[in-house]
Amino acid sequence: MNLRQLKTVTERRKFFEKTRRVNLKHIGRYSLDDAGASARNCENMIGATQIPLGIAGPLAISNIPSTKLRTGKNQISNKNTKPEEFHIPLATTEGALVASVNRGCKAIMESGGAHTDSYRVGATRGAVFHVSGLAQNDTLNTYIEEHFKELQTIAGQTSKHLTLTRFFSRGLGRYRYVRFVFDTRDAMGMNMATIATTAVATAIEKKTGIRCLSVAGNYDTDKKPSWLNAIEGRGWKAWAEVTIPATILRTVLKTTARDMYDVWIAKCMIGSALSGSMGFNAHYANVLAALFIATGQDPAHVAEGSAGITTAEVVRNQESGIRNQEESLYISVYLPDLMIGTVGGGTGLETQREALSILGVAGGNNGANVRTFAEIVGAAVLAGEASLLASLAEGSLARAHQRLARGRVNPTNKQINTSDK
Amino acid sequence: MNLRQLKTVTERRKFFEKTRRVNLKHIGRYSLDDAGASARNCENMIGATQIPLGIAGPLAISNIPSTKLRTGKNQISNKNTKPEEFHIPLATTEGALVASVNRGCKAIMESGGAHTDSYRVGATRGAVFHVSGLAQNDTLNTYIEEHFKELQTIAGQTSKHLTLTRFFSRGLGRYRYVRFVFDTRDAMGMNMATIATTAVATAIEKKTGIRCLSVAGNYDTDKKPSWLNAIEGRGWKAWAEVTIPATILRTVLKTTARDMYDVWIAKCMIGSALSGSMGFNAHYANVLAALFIATGQDPAHVAEGSAGITTAEVVRNQESGIRNQEESLYISVYLPDLMIGTVGGGTGLETQREALSILGVAGGNNGANVRTFAEIVGAAVLAGEASLLASLAEGSLARAHQRLARGRVNPTNKQINTSDK
Amino acid sequence: MNLRQLKTVTERRKFFEKTRRVNLKHIGRYSLDDAGASARNCENMIGATQIPLGIAGPLAISNIPSTKLRTGKNQISNKNTKPEEFHIPLATTEGALVASVNRGCKAIMESGGAHTDSYRVGATRGAVFHVSGLAQNDTLNTYIEEHFKELQTIAGQTSKHLTLTRFFSRGLGRYRYVRFVFDTRDAMGMNMATIATTAVATAIEKKTGIRCLSVAGNYDTDKKPSWLNAIEGRGWKAWAEVTIPATILRTVLKTTARDMYDVWIAKCMIGSALSGSMGFNAHYANVLAALFIATGQDPAHVAEGSAGITTAEVVRNQESGIRNQEESLYISVYLPDLMIGTVGGGTGLETQREALSILGVAGGNNGANVRTFAEIVGAAVLAGEASLLASLAEGSLARAHQRLARGRVNPTNKQINTSDK
Amino acid sequence: MNLRQLKTVTERRKFFEKTRRVNLKHIGRYSLDDAGASARNCENMIGATQIPLGIAGPLAISNIPSTKLRTGKNQISNKNTKPEEFHIPLATTEGALVASVNRGCKAIMESGGAHTDSYRVGATRGAVFHVSGLAQNDTLNTYIEEHFKELQTIAGQTSKHLTLTRFFSRGLGRYRYVRFVFDTRDAMGMNMATIATTAVATAIEKKTGIRCLSVAGNYDTDKKPSWLNAIEGRGWKAWAEVTIPATILRTVLKTTARDMYDVWIAKCMIGSALSGSMGFNAHYANVLAALFIATGQDPAHVAEGSAGITTAEVVRNQESGIRNQEESLYISVYLPDLMIGTVGGGTGLETQREALSILGVAGGNNGANVRTFAEIVGAAVLAGEASLLASLAEGSLARAHQRLARGRVNPTNKQINTSDK
Repeated sequence: MNLRQLKTVTERRKFFEKTRRVNLKHIGRYSLDDAGASARNCENMIGATQIPLGIAGPLAISNIPSTKLRTGKNQISNKNTKPEEFHIPLATTEGALVASVNRGCKAIMESGGAHTDSYRVGATRGAVFHVSGLAQNDTLNTYIEEHFKELQTIAGQTSKHLTLTRFFSRGLGRYRYVRFVFDTRDAMGMNMATIATTAVATAIEKKTGIRCLSVAGNYDTDKKPSWLNAIEGRGWKAWAEVTIPATILRTVLKTTARDMYDVWIAKCMIGSALSGSMGFNAHYANVLAALFIATGQDPAHVAEGSAGITTAEVVRNQESGIRNQEESLYISVYLPDLMIGTVGGGTGLETQREALSILGVAGGNNGANVRTFAEIVGAAVLAGEASLLASLAEGSLARAHQRLARGRVNPTNKQINTSDK
Repeated sequence: MNLRQLKTVTERRKFFEKTRRVNLKHIGRYSLDDAGASARNCENMIGATQIPLGIAGPLAISNIPSTKLRTGKNQISNKNTKPEEFHIPLATTEGALVASVNRGCKAIMESGGAHTDSYRVGATRGAVFHVSGLAQNDTLNTYIEEHFKELQTIAGQTSKHLTLTRFFSRGLGRYRYVRFVFDTRDAMGMNMATIATTAVATAIEKKTGIRCLSVAGNYDTDKKPSWLNAIEGRGWKAWAEVTIPATILRTVLKTTARDMYDVWIAKCMIGSALSGSMGFNAHYANVLAALFIATGQDPAHVAEGSAGITTAEVVRNQESGIRNQEESLYISVYLPDLMIGTVGGGTGLETQREALSILGVAGGNNGANVRTFAEIVGAAVLAGEASLLASLAEGSLARAHQRLARGRVNPTNKQINTSDK
Repeated sequence: MNLRQLKTVTERRKFFEKTRRVNLKHIGRYSLDDAGASARNCENMIGATQIPLGIAGPLAISNIPSTKLRTGKNQISNKNTKPEEFHIPLATTEGALVASVNRGCKAIMESGGAHTDSYRVGATRGAVFHVSGLAQNDTLNTYIEEHFKELQTIAGQTSKHLTLTRFFSRGLGRYRYVRFVFDTRDAMGMNMATIATTAVATAIEKKTGIRCLSVAGNYDTDKKPSWLNAIEGRGWKAWAEVTIPATILRTVLKTTARDMYDVWIAKCMIGSALSGSMGFNAHYANVLAALFIATGQDPAHVAEGSAGITTAEVVRNQESGIRNQEESLYISVYLPDLMIGTVGGGTGLETQREALSILGVAGGNNGANVRTFAEIVGAAVLAGEASLLASLAEGSLARAHQRLARGRVNPTNKQINTSDK
Repeated sequence: MNLRQLKTVTERRKFFEKTRRVNLKHIGRYSLDDAGASARNCENMIGATQIPLGIAGPLAISNIPSTKLRTGKNQISNKNTKPEEFHIPLATTEGALVASVNRGCKAIMESGGAHTDSYRVGATRGAVFHVSGLAQNDTLNTYIEEHFKELQTIAGQTSKHLTLTRFFSRGLGRYRYVRFVFDTRDAMGMNMATIATTAVATAIEKKTGIRCLSVAGNYDTDKKPSWLNAIEGRGWKAWAEVTIPATILRTVLKTTARDMYDVWIAKCMIGSALSGSMGFNAHYANVLAALFIATGQDPAHVAEGSAGITTAEVVRNQESGIRNQEESLYISVYLPDLMIGTVGGGTGLETQREALSILGVAGGNNGANVRTFAEIVGAAVLAGEASLLASLAEGSLARAHQRLARGRVNPTNKQINTSDK
């Protein structure tokens, strides 16, 4: 008996139970529509993996209105919309993650909510063409520039849900790389983007006689960390920020602005610089992975989504003379590369769709659902950063307290031993 | 009614069904032990996310015996052990992934199997200390060097499953970063490593009066892509290789060695170089994400695991005079940073443990299970690379065939138009 | 007596001869106008450093005409202009460099000359502003977009030799980085760009009340390797290519296409990927440093100029049946970040101006001189790459020949031992 | 008449004066020994380039004694040696550089001098071998490990000034990269290292039958920025630090600790992170280029030397209650990759040797001269960082003052507008 001859999920599973002498009863316990999943999501299906699903929140988020400045006005207003509350579904097997994000949500909530902003860069597919040399390299670029409207039409014919918006191209030697950028509405859109790029590349091949070596030339850059993605952005960019007052730092996060700042600079800045990291943050990947799995995103996109920069600033409150108690902490996250969607791919599976519905963003909504989702992702990641940086700062403090108990350091002058030069 | 007051999975789920007016019946359908999962894997649990689980394979793997060279012998033998067959469990929502890996497995299988090698680097935790300046920076390093055996003892007291094996330290200004490296047997081991690092850092603090700013100073580097991880390695390193003969390239992968090589160099090498990527590969992240989720690994580790280098070489077969038909393709993968385990974390959940049991590596086995698992991961990633590179090469060829039909290119001299200068 | 009180070059030099008890007679031997140099190039001047100046060449270069494609025509022509010959001045203390570049020039010359292309990106200065948060971050970006013409006017008022052409901006948290891009004619232009950026930033500060933290926020990125520079380009981009026939590879470079290719892929691609390098090349920095010093460029710009990608391809010659003897090697260089000029800075010094005059590009010429110079730089770097890669390949071959003499490898099947699996 | 037939410097120069119709009278004015320079430093020599040489300083430097900790003592002492004063020779054509470094020297001088530390990593050469696959890859590594003493002997036989100290090797697919590390006394040592590596690689080839593709496989990584160099170090590592009191910040640097810190974090940390830079500093390359040219170093090494991290910290002075006036700034530099020497290469040329003699480190001195020189380089770079960061901070302040004059911002609460959220 051969695996390839087996047609149903059950037959395959039983095949393994027999040949490997294992019991797969839990893998066999699922409620999702296996015919649909087999057709759309997973070949050779034998069942389902169950991932515990937890909830963090509520998390209050207010979106930054991208209003253009009125001409002639010097003063820029900061008016934000009223915050909305979300509960964040996180599918994870790593204990403490939900609790940690939850604590961050609470700190943000009590600080008045997170402000968020987002920007659609678009799904990208980076084809590579093989030209005869520099002259043809230049003319191919010119060709694409001059015929871009035609190429947009060709791309648009492959799907009504996709628009080719722009391209970003670099050539060297006999290679020209063309990163095509697509608006794919509420979908993450890589499949659409690939089909459209194939159509566009084929058209270019026909017109110019230049061969497309690969529709995917790592100039996308899909599912790998890359500076091109970090600098140009990919999918969605998301930002989130919050200023946490001293009292909330103390009561919810068990730390101070100064201690969190010290950890941030040592870890997210200098530590990342010293290790040659693309991630200048505490743990974007943790929150992204859990949120992506819960909501049917492609978890391989965590590889690129984990790049990004967290910033922190100690904000002095002028009205009070007591320094330590009164410093707030401003903290922000910047995620330049979020490949996400609320329709298509895994978002259509039953449990994943339910998770999106908890957020109120399930299904297509002319791009509005995915934008809201992008900002939720940003805010959830912010909650994760605030909580972990506080934990690390608190840990240090906890040990400092142990030392204090033995009288080695004067509690009111904690930094004496490190700043006396 | 407040979420925090709700104690059971069912109560919480019903709370959301009511307050968000959504139906969570699928999230509520699961078989895993929610009391255990709530305690160990996921707080505020409301149910489970179901991920379709497919199987690719069989995949034949033979391990490279790390035998030391006999002194005085010039000739190095390449004798490998007999291949063993594995079926690869992949939990994914992305259609075509299982089928693609499956095709790669078939090509490897018919080529005699993959050779693999692996090396335990160890779990790392990178603490950061705040010193008074360069002099103390130097002496702290000396202190750790001179007292390393004591620190090993302190680390070892935190768990019988962990050994502190070495440290890698860099200092600058008033910061010293110390990357502690641990053998954690069959466990991925980050929790153990964190607890041990905390104990070691506390001991250093007590003895030297130097403050540890954070036990996790991004010098780990945990869950972020970093060159430190790529260069020094983290967790496990895995390698896999196969030489695919021309006939199998043609029948299974529908391409030729030359076409696959051309895609490889354009995509994995120049395309990645041009985009500033850390991933010089086709799609490690796809296979890692699906295999990690299926087997209870931490999917956030895909962020660092996706870095790595795929190599390819066209191998000429001397015995035949017919060039095109007879070139084989050597292809290899190198994954320097795999944080994996077969015990602990998500590996204990029911469906995940069953997936590990399909591979025959469930549970602890004094480090042997995780080593086998590392090499399975390497071989599975190799299957994914071979299959995707072939698809991309074939896609190009398909379009080339369309062109051929219109007579623009001479089919026996496909490269004429690109090499005539 | 104090150094600061000394007014002339001679007085200062004598001060050191006396106080340090050293003889500075050579430093005191120079012909350049020390009054002018003291005023424009070097404070506290005590004399001059002499760097041996050598000449490589002649190097034949033909520029790629950037002609736009005629609409409706499928076929792209590769017609190049007739090559022009240049002698390359190289100021260096490193023996063998001039000889090596010279050999590369000869190989290129005998292969019909290098083709070059270039593109003015422009000098950049990347200011950083401190905003109150994400809302103001967004509005500042909008402000610059909407008032860009006004800012161009303000920039243009600072110098008639400068035009603000565009900006590239990214914001995160309370920071907004704005990379202003300038056309500075034949000048490298950093001083102009800084003055213009200061004027523009001051205007923005006045209008918006937002503080510019630094006119140079490393978003330039000046004199540091950065992926932003590599991806977006800086100053000038230059490309050069040549296809070297087998006979010239054999007679001039003492190697074969295949051997050079093997070194290229192992060194410039995989070696650079494995070491996390930004330079996917053999030794751009060597040629840049020598050419920059000779012609009065700022040698600190070698730090960024050294990034770039060399490509190579074995080109099969169909007309011959004898494979090994008849393969040509296509080789190209891509330098995305050349901060260069033919007027201003060190280019006005006597010896430097003479070196530029050897190239026929001394002084300002409405941007034409610097463009020619950019392509000369590209072609000279190409000569250096070809020569060094050949030397490395030849070295390997030489040792291979030693082995051959002992009968271990069959000379007609050199690769047997590496492809027999 | 052909250039290659001309034998003397004068003949060649006259050839160009005639054929290019240019006047090279300044290039022809030099005092260096052109016979020696032609033989050792520069082929096809036609004269010399003159670079203005200025002096910055005095710069007070005290070395950190690398004393090992006494066992059983908790307290780590910071006792430093008495500072020594140096004048820094800088060959540059960029106006303001010497003046800027000079100002930094003054600030350091008045702050009691810089503390420095250094560490010899060693010159590296990274050969690449082509193996038959993973098994041979592993055995080659084992071979080198087991025969390392023999290889050390072979290396040592190529020069009495060189010792092979260790190797750092990585393998993937059919490539093994071996970074050989050498102690080359007072010489920078690349030529020695290459000769020794060739001998070692030839020996490995003979013993194992494995081909060395290239003795220089970019795993050095020579003259390119690379994370391998930044993380492992290359040549020499140097550190320098100083704490500048508020009064000196005010009188010499015209700024405050807080303003300099704000520029540092925005520029050297976040700006570099956002631009994907390897240089987390203000302008190491400027000082390195000028100092390297003056002292006969290879200026191409600026490409790698420019990587490194500057840190800054605001240090609170407890004894005073007036915050703004009393904060000091701690600033440090970390240069992990300095390829330098005081003997060999360009250091033997007349003007370069004189510059080294001004520093008191000309010639070989069993490694002591180059160590002193490394720390001088570190301290000079520190002076450059302090001065430029202050200039940028002051520039911002200057404009702030203009705003203040118009009453927009309350001068005693300068940060009100940026921290009021």
